[in-house]
Amino acid sequence: MSNLKSQIRVAILGYGNIGRAAEEAVKAAPDMELAGIYHHDDCLDKISNDKCQISNDNSQFSILNSQFSNAERPVDVVLVCTPTREVQKFATVLAARGICTVDSFDIHGQIWSLRTALDAVCQANQSVSIISSGWDPGTDSMVRALLQAMAPKGLTYTNFGPGRSMGHTVAAKAIQGVKNALSMTIPLGTGIHRRMVYIELEDGADFKTVEAAILADDYFAHDETHVIAVESVDALNNVAHGVNLVRSGVSGETHNQRFEFNMEINNPALTGQIMVSAARAAFRMKARGEFGAKTMIELRPIDLLPGTIEQNVKALV
Amino acid sequence: MSNLKSQIRVAILGYGNIGRAAEEAVKAAPDMELAGIYHHDDCLDKISNDKCQISNDNSQFSILNSQFSNAERPVDVVLVCTPTREVQKFATVLAARGICTVDSFDIHGQIWSLRTALDAVCQANQSVSIISSGWDPGTDSMVRALLQAMAPKGLTYTNFGPGRSMGHTVAAKAIQGVKNALSMTIPLGTGIHRRMVYIELEDGADFKTVEAAILADDYFAHDETHVIAVESVDALNNVAHGVNLVRSGVSGETHNQRFEFNMEINNPALTGQIMVSAARAAFRMKARGEFGAKTMIELRPIDLLPGTIEQNVKALV
Repeated sequence: MSNLKSQIRVAILGYGNIGRAAEEAVKAAPDMELAGIYHHDDCLDKISNDKCQISNDNSQFSILNSQFSNAERPVDVVLVCTPTREVQKFATVLAARGICTVDSFDIHGQIWSLRTALDAVCQANQSVSIISSGWDPGTDSMVRALLQAMAPKGLTYTNFGPGRSMGHTVAAKAIQGVKNALSMTIPLGTGIHRRMVYIELEDGADFKTVEAAILADDYFAHDETHVIAVESVDALNNVAHGVNLVRSGVSGETHNQRFEFNMEINNPALTGQIMVSAARAAFRMKARGEFGAKTMIELRPIDLLPGTIEQNVKALV
Repeated sequence: MSNLKSQIRVAILGYGNIGRAAEEAVKAAPDMELAGIYHHDDCLDKISNDKCQISNDNSQFSILNSQFSNAERPVDVVLVCTPTREVQKFATVLAARGICTVDSFDIHGQIWSLRTALDAVCQANQSVSIISSGWDPGTDSMVRALLQAMAPKGLTYTNFGPGRSMGHTVAAKAIQGVKNALSMTIPLGTGIHRRMVYIELEDGADFKTVEAAILADDYFAHDETHVIAVESVDALNNVAHGVNLVRSGVSGETHNQRFEFNMEINNPALTGQIMVSAARAAFRMKARGEFGAKTMIELRPIDLLPGTIEQNVKALV
């Protein structure tokens, strides 16, 4: 094909940290074209892309519908970069229109239910939804599956960080007297984590009272937690994250098989990139008639990569 | 199903280090039954399995044919654990009979040609051959593909060892004056390796002459190589091996994304286990009508694992 960039048309829904990272990854992909970016809120100043469509009426659906209908060529895949709790709503509407979606839905306990619901919509409408395709859940899940296949008996420990926990940060911010907060996850091994909670106090708030409230919160009560007052949480801002995933297991009857996967990464950049690579897999699976909702452990690694099977087998196997 | 062990009937062809390890992994698999072991040579004493069929006439084909025809239930997958240069011969005959095969063919430069040849046979006879499914090529290839998808620009270095190199050991043994040899691969980083060659000299052989011949051999001439005379190579025997696979790359426009995969393993035990896990994938792919020859980067990780999609998604994603 003479214009590789136009092979796969990708749109981005939601233009936060991950949406912006995904935009960079789409632009860097040799076989993808950015079809549009869709966002609804009042942060117009954050957006400087001529393909960006803004809605203040909270109704992306109509914008998406009109854009996708009017386009000279249909959008192949929409990257759903909304907050995780809004993923199902948008992915369902898109899948029902036969448009593939990719999300990085990250509530581990609800992944199977999302997969079940979206799978039915995809099967009925000949679309593909790749769900939970960030790094955890996502590529870490693929590594865990691979290590399980290499040593079926044993224990895998996923140690996160050092890096910001979104859930714990939100929980700390909700405590009375906290103006701003950052909860860092520090790995202590065997899946045990320390929480380092940096807080800016509201005027007049008492540190000891706030600290006690944080330590009593269910998010923090079960882990070693340290609360530290700082002048500026913003001054600590850093999207670095990481993982140390270890398994010791048994292959056949042979014990003491040891495996380790480490990474130190920019969190939104990696998440956006993985979603873009998963969009390629969704496009190819739809072309082969493999409809449905899938998690990343259900994808072929080669489908994530540009290039032909021959090129990738020769370069990577 | 009441008897999970009988879901997949697996036979082993070739009863060397890997065949024996594969036997243990089949027996440990909750969904596999050992259908038979086929071997031809005179090392009867190595074999203590009542399912083992021995041929001294170098014609496994006839044994395989009669066994598979007479069996109450057909063999689903044959693990081809022969020397790598004999893989294509056996896999071709089996695939032509509609029987799935798995091998750990490890000559990197010839993998695409093996895949092309076997793919045609598999497509024509509705079988599946999973090729080069050891750890490198194999699971390392899957990790390389995954890291490429996570950070498309950058460099991956695969550092092997410390562990025995089969190819270099054979090359050292072929030098005149060498009675027995062991060539260890020592990783020096960035894909550069040292060769530690331990040799037992023939009676009357001159160490300096043998050392010079080894250093001049094309297998050793390009790497830092040390030759050491020992009383007994057998006393050094150890099937430990390992890998340190590192990538620093770019996700989207974000540089300095760092990844590392390490393992320290029993080599034949891991290879046998990976072949058994790949046999499960072959069985499932055939059941879905996905015929052909595939490398491991073309497999879904979930297909390597026993259990349902729901069980594995809930446990691993």
